[in-house]
Amino acid sequence: MSNTRLPLLEPAGPAVAPCCPPLTERPMTAEEAETAARMFKALGDPVRLRLFSAVASHEGGEACVCDISDVGVSQPTVSHHLKKLKDAGLLTSERRGTWVYYRVEPSVLAAMGKLLTTPATA
Amino acid sequence: MSNTRLPLLEPAGPAVAPCCPPLTERPMTAEEAETAARMFKALGDPVRLRLFSAVASHEGGEACVCDISDVGVSQPTVSHHLKKLKDAGLLTSERRGTWVYYRVEPSVLAAMGKLLTTPATA
Repeated sequence: MSNTRLPLLEPAGPAVAPCCPPLTERPMTAEEAETAARMFKALGDPVRLRLFSAVASHEGGEACVCDISDVGVSQPTVSHHLKKLKDAGLLTSERRGTWVYYRVEPSVLAAMGKLLTTPATA
Repeated sequence: MSNTRLPLLEPAGPAVAPCCPPLTERPMTAEEAETAARMFKALGDPVRLRLFSAVASHEGGEACVCDISDVGVSQPTVSHHLKKLKDAGLLTSERRGTWVYYRVEPSVLAAMGKLLTTPATA
């Protein structure tokens, strides 16, 4: 067996970011709560939430600043909020030519959705 | 037809708080983002998230302050955070005897979960 590093290619399956069980399952640990609160906090601002939704719903699941500047704030402010979403792990970005393109990290969205799963109602 | 007001009794079905479509469906309006951001912000603090999770996962889906005081903060701080969760519409409360009991509002949890729904992956 070679000891070369694993290739960067990874299965593109429905990965779920390793965070936390559903909020209704058991009390969260301090560590889990730190991770999850960071994601919720990033979405806890109306402008960021609109930008996130604009990226998430954009054709092909990605958008550049040029696509999503209609939320009533300046482009530097848009960039600032996109950076915060990126720092929270909710968006990834890639520069292509003049523009940086943002993409929603689906595994993170899935993990947050799982957190809010409600138990089957009786 | 009578013009009396509708009775307060409402179907106890799987109501979903009227908020917003999935984030991936279309860009949110400013008004939708205000509503949803308030809920996300309430969960954007580790202590509040642990308290919310403690209530949500407690037997019977409700808990009093006396049940959930093991998150490492004082009881007044616990009460303060529970009030914030209540103000955001995530918890309801009811006084019974000495204690106030908190309960997760399932329709709100369902609405937040819906927001984070990811489209079926190709």
